[in-house]
Amino acid sequence: MARHLLRADQTLVVYDVLPSNVAALVAAGATAATSVRDAAAQADLVLTMLPSSPQVKAVYLGADGVIAAVQPGTTLVDCSTIDPHSAREVGAAAAARDLAMADAPVSGGTGGAEAGTLTFMVGAPGELFTRIQPILAQMGKNIVHCGASGNGQVAKICNNLLLGISMIGVSEAMNLGVALGIEPSVLAGIINTSSGRCWSSDTYNPYPGVMPQAPAARGYTGGFGTDLMLKDLGLASDAAKQAKQPLPMGALAQQLYQLQSNQGAGALDFSAIINLYLSTRSQP
Amino acid sequence: MARHLLRADQTLVVYDVLPSNVAALVAAGATAATSVRDAAAQADLVLTMLPSSPQVKAVYLGADGVIAAVQPGTTLVDCSTIDPHSAREVGAAAAARDLAMADAPVSGGTGGAEAGTLTFMVGAPGELFTRIQPILAQMGKNIVHCGASGNGQVAKICNNLLLGISMIGVSEAMNLGVALGIEPSVLAGIINTSSGRCWSSDTYNPYPGVMPQAPAARGYTGGFGTDLMLKDLGLASDAAKQAKQPLPMGALAQQLYQLQSNQGAGALDFSAIINLYLSTRSQP
Amino acid sequence: MARHLLRADQTLVVYDVLPSNVAALVAAGATAATSVRDAAAQADLVLTMLPSSPQVKAVYLGADGVIAAVQPGTTLVDCSTIDPHSAREVGAAAAARDLAMADAPVSGGTGGAEAGTLTFMVGAPGELFTRIQPILAQMGKNIVHCGASGNGQVAKICNNLLLGISMIGVSEAMNLGVALGIEPSVLAGIINTSSGRCWSSDTYNPYPGVMPQAPAARGYTGGFGTDLMLKDLGLASDAAKQAKQPLPMGALAQQLYQLQSNQGAGALDFSAIINLYLSTRSQP
Amino acid sequence: MARHLLRADQTLVVYDVLPSNVAALVAAGATAATSVRDAAAQADLVLTMLPSSPQVKAVYLGADGVIAAVQPGTTLVDCSTIDPHSAREVGAAAAARDLAMADAPVSGGTGGAEAGTLTFMVGAPGELFTRIQPILAQMGKNIVHCGASGNGQVAKICNNLLLGISMIGVSEAMNLGVALGIEPSVLAGIINTSSGRCWSSDTYNPYPGVMPQAPAARGYTGGFGTDLMLKDLGLASDAAKQAKQPLPMGALAQQLYQLQSNQGAGALDFSAIINLYLSTRSQP
Repeated sequence: MARHLLRADQTLVVYDVLPSNVAALVAAGATAATSVRDAAAQADLVLTMLPSSPQVKAVYLGADGVIAAVQPGTTLVDCSTIDPHSAREVGAAAAARDLAMADAPVSGGTGGAEAGTLTFMVGAPGELFTRIQPILAQMGKNIVHCGASGNGQVAKICNNLLLGISMIGVSEAMNLGVALGIEPSVLAGIINTSSGRCWSSDTYNPYPGVMPQAPAARGYTGGFGTDLMLKDLGLASDAAKQAKQPLPMGALAQQLYQLQSNQGAGALDFSAIINLYLSTRSQP
Repeated sequence: MARHLLRADQTLVVYDVLPSNVAALVAAGATAATSVRDAAAQADLVLTMLPSSPQVKAVYLGADGVIAAVQPGTTLVDCSTIDPHSAREVGAAAAARDLAMADAPVSGGTGGAEAGTLTFMVGAPGELFTRIQPILAQMGKNIVHCGASGNGQVAKICNNLLLGISMIGVSEAMNLGVALGIEPSVLAGIINTSSGRCWSSDTYNPYPGVMPQAPAARGYTGGFGTDLMLKDLGLASDAAKQAKQPLPMGALAQQLYQLQSNQGAGALDFSAIINLYLSTRSQP
Repeated sequence: MARHLLRADQTLVVYDVLPSNVAALVAAGATAATSVRDAAAQADLVLTMLPSSPQVKAVYLGADGVIAAVQPGTTLVDCSTIDPHSAREVGAAAAARDLAMADAPVSGGTGGAEAGTLTFMVGAPGELFTRIQPILAQMGKNIVHCGASGNGQVAKICNNLLLGISMIGVSEAMNLGVALGIEPSVLAGIINTSSGRCWSSDTYNPYPGVMPQAPAARGYTGGFGTDLMLKDLGLASDAAKQAKQPLPMGALAQQLYQLQSNQGAGALDFSAIINLYLSTRSQP
Repeated sequence: MARHLLRADQTLVVYDVLPSNVAALVAAGATAATSVRDAAAQADLVLTMLPSSPQVKAVYLGADGVIAAVQPGTTLVDCSTIDPHSAREVGAAAAARDLAMADAPVSGGTGGAEAGTLTFMVGAPGELFTRIQPILAQMGKNIVHCGASGNGQVAKICNNLLLGISMIGVSEAMNLGVALGIEPSVLAGIINTSSGRCWSSDTYNPYPGVMPQAPAARGYTGGFGTDLMLKDLGLASDAAKQAKQPLPMGALAQQLYQLQSNQGAGALDFSAIINLYLSTRSQP
């Protein structure tokens, strides 16, 4: 993501807890900061990408954090995937200091980041969305306005909730069909032109041999890891619990990915969930 | 389906347990038969459409049934949706009398039957498929060869298994998103261009107000009934049990449609499952 | 079961498809019959124990079956575990020939059969129950009247449905507690004196090391096999489907035992389901 | 709980955010404190009972909290039901000030509190358990040592996880049996002497008419509320997520109670979950 901004002639001041990450970007034309505070104090727009909500809260709300450090008028954009409640809490803290802040989680994986084809799901007032859209467009292809603060996170976790369910649905349907005697590519072809059609079936089919470019064709390496899917389903079920909404299929999907992860497959692409359906006798 | 064949100048001999159904087709140009045996004895191609496997077995295998009644060389095509095991049992009984038989379940509903846009999923040897394809094409738009005997049924139940799961996945994702504060049509728009994309979301979205032509826009009337989805998920879980394949998401989906049916919604379109997620306080 | 009757000085005429089974009982004092028909024709009380409903229907309803072969006034008792619908169908066929018939499935396993401590769950009119109770008491300890024809099967599958669910509940609770740092025997002790108390916890605990006499103490050998539990949960979910009753926990339990069976554990005691919860890293 | 201590001639200094609660205990012989700090500073043993972990953290860890306020050598006992992780975090903060602290959540409900028959599940070093056991015994009947800090919480949530699952298991088994034609009290009697036996069946049966003293006999009023069961299942699934343990049956149970709560039954006893299984046609 940073490299795309550098190629677009943006001036970048960068900071990361891993010095090697900073050094690599300095070699590509960025300037190094010595701390979050140092980076934030120099920016007119702050972009962050962090693993989960405790880090986001620490980086934005801490005594040496972004909100304390920035100049008035600085724009804040957090690209982390976290729960909507925390995103709104940080957004409210920014607003209390008259800072405009957007949540803008991405989808598309490391492949999309490198190719500049990420989707950004943006929660922000319309005026702010309009202002940051051109910058996000230097790193991604689809920049989608999802409504007010926190709604970028809502869109991301709802999409991935459905994705996690659909992938298991495709796994069950493909595995059952093959056990009943149909050719996997014939079954995939029928589903993909019928009412079972979905991205997990027509673009990312988990059955080996059906799609040459899907993770199933390369031993489920690369792609979107099972443990990352688990994280997102955990965000969805937590948000559902807080909102007192039932989520039976989502909760079961989460548990099935947990079973699969505990069988040693957490680092494999999430479409490897289909292996949970194969008997030990049929596995290679 | 019969009317499309009459319009294509086919000669039809018809039989049904309801005399009024026979009379309506006679008025449209068909000839009435007095029994299954009578109809079968006059046909060079027999087409049947029956509610479930006991009826299919009775009509084909009974002492006065199709297989006993037809002339040598008659072609048999059963369009019922039944379990693959029964379809293959009937197909084998036909083969034992040197009769060529195909299973050819349809999707597309009564609307598709009237419009002539049904999909036929055909289990038959290649030569037989080639021979019956032009006749099925007079009643439907997509005539798909799924492999040998019984594979039409396999394709149908695997597609509908995935459809039943996807629809609940969309219901959970839409309901959760709205509870967390996003506009339903905004969320649907994002999902439909992202990895959660599926037919249940982009063509048949269950959330009211998102799609003017979906059953959700007309109180879930018309469409594909919840109790029909229940029947197909029952066929899938039975087949999975016989084949010793796990089906956790499919089994849970079946139970959720059963809960919904028991709340009085069996005759509504299956996308009404989203109502199971609304609290009593929020229902109209 | 037969040996207990012989020890009680009953006169036994025996038949089985395996001649060695017949020979073993002849050595113990029984008389061999040459067929179902031959055995049934000589009996004033017929006792059967068969694997599933197709065999029960064949043995009772066939042209050479029990109902055709017996003398007027013979009493029929089927001890197989089958679906209530089939049990009632056979019972009705017996009644049509004025024969009194009871369904009397057992629980207690091969150990209970040898020790004479089986439980018989009897579906029969009160008068018939009174009449056969003393004979069943020669083979078992608890002879329970469950109501009219078929109700023995109902009681058996409902009890085993709950048993299958409870065992997974205990597995989840024990596994979670240990992962969170409590000693397994301490946790079992607390549960067994609290509201989580159940037979699966206080008599048959699946966690290794908690109970010296449970299958968990001997590598899950012996006991009640996973594939037999799968059969009974299949009967329960089929009966629920026919009765249009939801069964979400039962259906999920069935799928989890199927997953476990497919990992090569079908012949192990059903309490081995706890192994599904252990990560590959923690398994021996 | 406080009244039992007063009756045992303990000297009580009490504080609550609701002044009326304080006044009622003062009338019974306690002394009022004006704040947490005021109460804690006067105590040699602090007992707390709070709704969830944020309150426990605030009351113990805040600048004016218990740990900051107490005299050296004061003993701390928290009776709240919270997640084990938070319990251990607070326990570690106490230990850092050389204060002995136990987590001692209770079961038995408001009825048990009034009758003095609560069960206390205590996480504490052995020496501390020995010291506080006599005091807890003035309020409860079973005082169980569960191991080190946090293990009281572990025992409580694991027991209630199993309880929540068992109650749904009993509901499914009873509802299915009755639909198949057996008398509910006959079925309960069989289960209660068989391997399906559990507290939810033999002490707290959810089917109306089976047990005169259970909540089912009084419209599911009183008892342990559905929303409290939801809270405990939420603690279990959160703890499982952090510990990376699968919990499919527990997660599904949680969702079924959420469905039931959203149909307006959150305040009813948790055994009212059986109503989820009744069709609208059969409900009164």
